[in-house]
Amino acid sequence: MEGLMMGTQLLVSSLLRNAAINHPTTEVVSRSVEGPIHRYGYADLERRARRLANALQGLGVGPSDRVGTLAWNTWRHLEIYYAASGSGAVCHTINPRLFPPQIVYIVNHGEDKVLFLDLTFVPLVEQLASRFETVEAFVIMTDEANMPEIRLPGALCFETLMKAASEDFEWPSFDENTASSLCYSSGTTGNPKGVLYSHRSTVLHAMAAALPDVVDVSARDVTMPVVPMFHVNAWGFPYYTPMMGAKLVLPGPLADGASIHELLENEGVTISAGVPTVWLGLLQYLEETGKALSTVKRLVIGGSAVPRAMTEAFLDRYGVEVRHAWGMTEMSPLGTINTPPHGMQDETPEQFCDRQVKQGRAFFGVEMKIVDDDDNTLPEDGVAFGMLKVRGPWVCSAYYKESGSDTHDGNGWFATGDVATIDETRNMQVTDRSKDVIKSGGEWISSIELENIAVGHPDVAEAASIGVQHPKWDERPLLVVVRREGAELSRGDMLAYFEGRVARWWVPDDVVFVDELPHTATGKLLKMQLREDYKDYVLPTAGG
Amino acid sequence: MEGLMMGTQLLVSSLLRNAAINHPTTEVVSRSVEGPIHRYGYADLERRARRLANALQGLGVGPSDRVGTLAWNTWRHLEIYYAASGSGAVCHTINPRLFPPQIVYIVNHGEDKVLFLDLTFVPLVEQLASRFETVEAFVIMTDEANMPEIRLPGALCFETLMKAASEDFEWPSFDENTASSLCYSSGTTGNPKGVLYSHRSTVLHAMAAALPDVVDVSARDVTMPVVPMFHVNAWGFPYYTPMMGAKLVLPGPLADGASIHELLENEGVTISAGVPTVWLGLLQYLEETGKALSTVKRLVIGGSAVPRAMTEAFLDRYGVEVRHAWGMTEMSPLGTINTPPHGMQDETPEQFCDRQVKQGRAFFGVEMKIVDDDDNTLPEDGVAFGMLKVRGPWVCSAYYKESGSDTHDGNGWFATGDVATIDETRNMQVTDRSKDVIKSGGEWISSIELENIAVGHPDVAEAASIGVQHPKWDERPLLVVVRREGAELSRGDMLAYFEGRVARWWVPDDVVFVDELPHTATGKLLKMQLREDYKDYVLPTAGG
Repeated sequence: MEGLMMGTQLLVSSLLRNAAINHPTTEVVSRSVEGPIHRYGYADLERRARRLANALQGLGVGPSDRVGTLAWNTWRHLEIYYAASGSGAVCHTINPRLFPPQIVYIVNHGEDKVLFLDLTFVPLVEQLASRFETVEAFVIMTDEANMPEIRLPGALCFETLMKAASEDFEWPSFDENTASSLCYSSGTTGNPKGVLYSHRSTVLHAMAAALPDVVDVSARDVTMPVVPMFHVNAWGFPYYTPMMGAKLVLPGPLADGASIHELLENEGVTISAGVPTVWLGLLQYLEETGKALSTVKRLVIGGSAVPRAMTEAFLDRYGVEVRHAWGMTEMSPLGTINTPPHGMQDETPEQFCDRQVKQGRAFFGVEMKIVDDDDNTLPEDGVAFGMLKVRGPWVCSAYYKESGSDTHDGNGWFATGDVATIDETRNMQVTDRSKDVIKSGGEWISSIELENIAVGHPDVAEAASIGVQHPKWDERPLLVVVRREGAELSRGDMLAYFEGRVARWWVPDDVVFVDELPHTATGKLLKMQLREDYKDYVLPTAGG
Repeated sequence: MEGLMMGTQLLVSSLLRNAAINHPTTEVVSRSVEGPIHRYGYADLERRARRLANALQGLGVGPSDRVGTLAWNTWRHLEIYYAASGSGAVCHTINPRLFPPQIVYIVNHGEDKVLFLDLTFVPLVEQLASRFETVEAFVIMTDEANMPEIRLPGALCFETLMKAASEDFEWPSFDENTASSLCYSSGTTGNPKGVLYSHRSTVLHAMAAALPDVVDVSARDVTMPVVPMFHVNAWGFPYYTPMMGAKLVLPGPLADGASIHELLENEGVTISAGVPTVWLGLLQYLEETGKALSTVKRLVIGGSAVPRAMTEAFLDRYGVEVRHAWGMTEMSPLGTINTPPHGMQDETPEQFCDRQVKQGRAFFGVEMKIVDDDDNTLPEDGVAFGMLKVRGPWVCSAYYKESGSDTHDGNGWFATGDVATIDETRNMQVTDRSKDVIKSGGEWISSIELENIAVGHPDVAEAASIGVQHPKWDERPLLVVVRREGAELSRGDMLAYFEGRVARWWVPDDVVFVDELPHTATGKLLKMQLREDYKDYVLPTAGG
């Protein structure tokens, strides 16, 4: 027997409509690519999104057609988010930091019909356009005054397009399982894979993310996603900020400490989010200038592990709560966040910082477990580590246009590729990517744990640990280190630092100092390349 | 094109499973009907709910069968909630305060197969049982030691039933639109009407209700719904408290000031909820004893309008935030809550109390509008008032086993029967029930506004205002007043109190003093009866 409740569908447009109706004058503030700050209210955003929806239809964009974007966090990008998804098309955000051949692959694989791009990316697209097989129109996200000379067939100006379109548009209703947006996961191996979000998954993710124990967003908050809108929908901020009616600040193309600080202070930001690199930059800026953070309450940090020192610095010096989070493109992206369960509300700052070293706890909507190679569930004791598997309504069930997937099992679990522990409080810690684990004599050594220890040394700027071949143990850890500027750290100092911090057999067999480490487009260590670079490396222990 | 996201269904069992997995030791604390305090963790609750699910199947309860309850807020009632809905049956909560013929009607109309009842209600059910047409088993919610002598065919003891059942039960997965629970709306006219909630509506309502701008529940909170579990699912607390992993306190059968205060303090309650009457009782108790509220952060108050003096007393004397809320059985029940939009975070306590007089703002998932008799949308200026209409995923689409309904229009809106204003900040205020509006000379007078003014007088304990016939104006307002104990309020004093507080033509034509006013089972003024009692009343102005 079915319940007798309204069949209201969960649609992306309903988030925007809610903002326009219940929070019409609450601001969206953007640093524009052209420079100046742009501001307007949610009612303006909704009106312009309607106008853009008409413009998209004028460009021949129909239901489920893909609308590509190469763009920073600005109000125009936000308008595309809502106009594309809201009208039934698919908003396809593309990471401009990917290597050009990957961008070409993604645009062609996604079959983008229209490509929107910021001024920044005009040279890039001019260079690649001839290899785009499906793009019929390029729209430059600026106004007429700022339109550059462009060598692109059929290049259009965003604001000219808008001016010509009517505002008269009714957001259509359709099945909430309809695709709303597309984002490619920038793997370190093979071609990028597309994750095709639905309206339902996007709205449910937004509702869960705004909850008190996740990002905790109220209408009185001011959020600023520094995490780019081309990277897993800026972790959902463009959806749940309007949903809650909070003020939204979009930092445009600038993510340096000074630019970020300026917006945080001028706009009264209370919640911000991004990868550790961004916050390292901010901390350095604050230290150099002696400035404070007067309105920020919390930072959601993820993408890679948050060093304890960062959590401590924000808490002790600036009174800001770090919430360590973990997720994936395949998870919309939020999977865990480090908020404590009942009974842990009175922890000391010391205990707080200790806890934040881990990636956090699953919340309603996400199920997680760790399994061994035979898919047996492992104990949650904080020691056992295995493949982290997840499932829930905002986890992908397959990749776009990929038949079959070895990441999905028969019981509906998705294998994340992360190796993790889960402790007695269900606090999860990523110990490694499954392919980065160092296999020494049949036992696993966590490369990430070695790196975390190394970067705890005051003279280390960055460190990577990989397994290199060893005649006796199959693999042994090698540590590749970037020294902090001016530091004179020796191999012996570095290795001595591991003593007492890990089991003796986990201590790396050698240390190599380099000027910089290779990174992926999203800023993660490119271990694959390091393994390639050092594949013939002979460890000093190899002869013994 | 459909998105490629997991088709995880939103099921009531998933709320409980989440609590058991992520918050296994967080407590559910109940004042038992037998007297002592009972406490256990969410893992225990989930285990016992599984046991009960088996017991239900043993009693022949199959998918969509109705399981009736006549019970207070306790852990056993909570177990029935989850065992019934979670296993695919329908949890049908019955309001024991209804008039016995209505209870008989509801049990028969709902076709309850099994009826669970607390010890309190044994005499009532003994008296009515012979008229229940479908009930095959009566389960007394107690243990063997407390089982009374019972004159009921096939009466069973809850704990005996539990002992005999296996814990081995897997929560089934099924379509989220399946009916999960049933609650009858205790109308003031006609037979009660059944609202049949779905798993989807229940879970979406829970997610929305836990948001920062609604009830705002985190895992560190301790919630205590004083609102009964037989009254619209205790406003959803039994669902979103486990969902968030907060501690849940269930006050059993006692709602007097002393009993409530004891639990609030002993269990460290941070959030509680109930109708104004309960809080009036608590305030009186606090005043008499000089005691404080040391942990409560906020009270969600609804069911009838919250007097400004109540909001002020809680804020000024006890540092507790009142959140005025509005909803209906037909809305799961939450429709609006009074949290401010962006830009109003710095209001003074005075402004806060002023704002809380209204019922609040719609939040994501609820759409609302006011319309005139011709269904034209009225301006949101805080002055125009009309029928309040709502729609959203947790609003009923029809009543159970009722064909057709004049409360649902063709565009999917539900007519609430409340007359309201909506102001520029979208703060809604119920000015009347549509049938209680006093129609004087073609203009409307809000009976509720007159009552609110009357109870603002220090000598008034309660007041009701109804329209009585008038030869010239069709209807004119009559005020029926219960004086505060010992007060000597005169008709002239009372009428003088209205001067300057309403337009002159709104001032009642007469005042009648009575010892008590008639109420519905849920504590609302029974205006229908008052109108009946005074239908031949001759106003002093009628001869003029």
